[in-house]
Amino acid sequence: MRPIGVIHSPFTEKDQTPIQVTRSQALGRVEVFPEFADGLKDIENLSHIHLLYVFHQSSGYVLQIKPFLDDQEHGIFATRYPYRPNPIGLSTVRLVSRQNNMLSIEGVDVLDGTPLLDIKPYVPDFDLRTEGVRAGWYETRSKR
Amino acid sequence: MRPIGVIHSPFTEKDQTPIQVTRSQALGRVEVFPEFADGLKDIENLSHIHLLYVFHQSSGYVLQIKPFLDDQEHGIFATRYPYRPNPIGLSTVRLVSRQNNMLSIEGVDVLDGTPLLDIKPYVPDFDLRTEGVRAGWYETRSKR
Repeated sequence: MRPIGVIHSPFTEKDQTPIQVTRSQALGRVEVFPEFADGLKDIENLSHIHLLYVFHQSSGYVLQIKPFLDDQEHGIFATRYPYRPNPIGLSTVRLVSRQNNMLSIEGVDVLDGTPLLDIKPYVPDFDLRTEGVRAGWYETRSKR
Repeated sequence: MRPIGVIHSPFTEKDQTPIQVTRSQALGRVEVFPEFADGLKDIENLSHIHLLYVFHQSSGYVLQIKPFLDDQEHGIFATRYPYRPNPIGLSTVRLVSRQNNMLSIEGVDVLDGTPLLDIKPYVPDFDLRTEGVRAGWYETRSKR
């Protein structure tokens, strides 16, 4: 595993990043290193993409955590917290435009300088789930 | 990066796995290694989970590929093909039940024995995109 690029965002401090209660509308850029730029062919025809990246400012992991907006501990795999055994993050963003190896995105929620591991197309046939969705503790957390 | 578990599925050969044209309804199991089992607390309250895993039977990568159901080359980052610079897969499955460190799932589309890297909750607030979604070449591919 090695970075294929870098995510640029307005967030330079951990406590500034959106806590994913409501969806971020922040603008950012995804810089794909030139050696991988050919892999972007036709990506501009997609409206949304998944970004997989490294939680590079989170070292170590916990197996249970009490989230900021909740008063009970939950297993790390029932949360999106960064302190995971494999510190990989997943965010789905809107692809605004592409200029060569640079993507303009909307809805970024990661720290500036985050190492990018992969980009995947958001495809409703695979990714969209609407029937019978229950989001566990996320549904009952306080919405401050 | 190291496996936190193994995904068990009915698919033992690469050409048996669903090609994600229509959603798989295959049943499978996610075995989380005992040392990480505490991280599953409360996951049973979720209806759907993301699995991040290694495409362990794909070595090397390509930057452009002509998908099985299309007649043009696309950038690897505009496809879900396994031959990626970082061979990480992403599948969203329905969580049927949990028995200790074993999850029963529906909608598996990976090879039996796939190394698991992470489990994340599917949370509509973060993951659901319905407005203005364009899936690029996936929308125009032939649906055989």
